[in-house]
Amino acid sequence: MSAGSANGKIDHLGIAVKSIAEARKFYEALGLSVEATETVEAERVRAAMVPLGDSRIELLEATDEASVIAKFISKRGEGLHHVAIAVPDIEAAVAEMKRKGVRLVQDRVQRGAGGHLYVFVHPSSAGGVLVELVQSA
Amino acid sequence: MSAGSANGKIDHLGIAVKSIAEARKFYEALGLSVEATETVEAERVRAAMVPLGDSRIELLEATDEASVIAKFISKRGEGLHHVAIAVPDIEAAVAEMKRKGVRLVQDRVQRGAGGHLYVFVHPSSAGGVLVELVQSA
Repeated sequence: MSAGSANGKIDHLGIAVKSIAEARKFYEALGLSVEATETVEAERVRAAMVPLGDSRIELLEATDEASVIAKFISKRGEGLHHVAIAVPDIEAAVAEMKRKGVRLVQDRVQRGAGGHLYVFVHPSSAGGVLVELVQSA
Repeated sequence: MSAGSANGKIDHLGIAVKSIAEARKFYEALGLSVEATETVEAERVRAAMVPLGDSRIELLEATDEASVIAKFISKRGEGLHHVAIAVPDIEAAVAEMKRKGVRLVQDRVQRGAGGHLYVFVHPSSAGGVLVELVQSA
């Protein structure tokens, strides 16, 4: 629907896994391509992308014990870490969320390595799901 | 990417919530439309849809204590219940998954009320996520 496309889409799902080599087998069995992994040093995470329609799944593996992904898995086990929703105007979204009392993890919008903008919404305000809002560069 | 569209897409995310009335506020603050709720008697669930690009989020609320959603929330709290991936040929996907040793929740493909086909993949084979494969009617 045009309204859906205009207002947002699921940018990606971040799934915390112990091993990308193990987790990719399931997606490959579905005939999906698992793209070359990249390492995000700042977050101590290795990520592999699985394109899915206008979205993608990111398989996230910790590169060391101090990684947020390693801590997540030791506490909750493997599984969904966050849902990223692309929005056209993240500053407007943040202003509206603050007005409505939605709890954010950061007080203001952050800029990622590739120039995209992002902010995390606290799970307590989003049905128990860690939601990342993103706006492409 | 055309390959992504041809091979699959994220059909929907099912999120277990205590109250749709409460959970919808966040999506509405993002300017997203939350469509009228429907009740699935067989599953003792009320669902509200949030269209997002070529996918959607389903907010799932239990209608009584025996609902799988009520049990999920009492055990794990609110949060992502399942990820549904649309595939073009679910029987071929099941055959390939069995060949590769992927563990399924049901032994064979099920038919839903609307005529669509579905099968659940066990979280132990899919990075800790309950994955539903669907093929539209």
